[in-house]
Amino acid sequence: MVDSAAPAIVLVEPQLGENIGTAARAMMNCGLSDLRLVNPRDGWPSEPAVAASSGAERILEDARLYESTAAALEGLHSVYATTARPRDMNKPVLGPREAGSAMRRAEAAGERNGVLFGKESKGLHNDDIVLAGTIIEARLNPAHTSLNLAQAVLLVGWEWWMAGPVETPAAEPETTVEKGDAPALQSDLLNMFEHLERALDDSGHFFPAEKRPVMARNLRNIFHRANLTDSEVRGLRGVIESLSRRPRRRR
Amino acid sequence: MVDSAAPAIVLVEPQLGENIGTAARAMMNCGLSDLRLVNPRDGWPSEPAVAASSGAERILEDARLYESTAAALEGLHSVYATTARPRDMNKPVLGPREAGSAMRRAEAAGERNGVLFGKESKGLHNDDIVLAGTIIEARLNPAHTSLNLAQAVLLVGWEWWMAGPVETPAAEPETTVEKGDAPALQSDLLNMFEHLERALDDSGHFFPAEKRPVMARNLRNIFHRANLTDSEVRGLRGVIESLSRRPRRRR
Repeated sequence: MVDSAAPAIVLVEPQLGENIGTAARAMMNCGLSDLRLVNPRDGWPSEPAVAASSGAERILEDARLYESTAAALEGLHSVYATTARPRDMNKPVLGPREAGSAMRRAEAAGERNGVLFGKESKGLHNDDIVLAGTIIEARLNPAHTSLNLAQAVLLVGWEWWMAGPVETPAAEPETTVEKGDAPALQSDLLNMFEHLERALDDSGHFFPAEKRPVMARNLRNIFHRANLTDSEVRGLRGVIESLSRRPRRRR
Repeated sequence: MVDSAAPAIVLVEPQLGENIGTAARAMMNCGLSDLRLVNPRDGWPSEPAVAASSGAERILEDARLYESTAAALEGLHSVYATTARPRDMNKPVLGPREAGSAMRRAEAAGERNGVLFGKESKGLHNDDIVLAGTIIEARLNPAHTSLNLAQAVLLVGWEWWMAGPVETPAAEPETTVEKGDAPALQSDLLNMFEHLERALDDSGHFFPAEKRPVMARNLRNIFHRANLTDSEVRGLRGVIESLSRRPRRRR
């Protein structure tokens, strides 16, 4: 599932092949495929990159190599630079989340976006930042903002992915229910409660007697909250049955 | 800038020290500090972890080591498991974004959260997943969902960080908990499960014997879903105790 309108990832002078590989893996995770490399320090192709890419070899094979950042922008309409907010450049600064949305809007208008990532040790040069219309700055823990290259790619990719026209995870907790296991009927739930309470009556649990109503209600609340399925209600009735049998101690 | 109410990160049987180091770095980026390790394969402390942590040595030094996942949950109220949606477990599933908000709301209510991450090769065992009340599933590119360990930690940490502190309790329907009734500690919940399962063993409930693990797991899931309070756990232990007494039939 690859989206040809998705942003290009431009790694400027990456130092370690391994980081290129993990960046490619992060791209694959987020449905990105257009990888562009500007003068990777250790040459290209790279064995360590392939070893670290964990299934994203295709992205590495298709990666394009450039001799300058400017050349690597071919075919792009909007360029973002990932960096700490530069002091002396007056450019709009977005967080990854806002940038993800902005790129999606641009795509919808038929534009191609690209995101620049600098070398591991020093980030982007000012000359690269100048090429970008917008800065992406992740405001992380101020005591430790420096992100690993692949993790920076992941954050940008993740926010682009989440902003997209993909099915987003349900806002409310969804529940994984075994196939064929329907939610319990209220009537079965009530029968279970009565079963439990009879067994507890038999065992003398409700004591003193005037506390029975509130004790029973508290128990019912627990099971109401659990949104039991049909088979769970049957399972719990088995538990009540078993427990209220006379114990057969193991010898 | 470290937040002691922030979620604990629990790495279960991590294989490579390097990944523990990069996970610690991602934690530091996101303002997390409580790292818990369950049986790291290559022992602890780890030179490769320190080398990869890039400024997050302090988190590694303070990391706590445990011999079981259950033990690593000490002091936590809510546990999340990062995994693909399990087929046969009835648990709520959230995306990282929703989970970040849910954890912030729980913190505002004074609860401590923890997030389980499985080993690099295979993820979490079912036995670990059972310990969690909620699944966190990142719906990434369906063709390539597997995230590097540190990247999974980063996504969860990032979304927690972005969700920001919650000032007021959630507006959405919350459970009315009796005043003074705190959420149950995971350790008390585990003790209750063991009590229940011992009682069911004594009564011959688990039959055939090879079905015991799945039967026990299904029962645990029900109670995990119910978000039990402290007094509810005590109440349920009383119920188990009462039911497993020899019946005193009314005459």
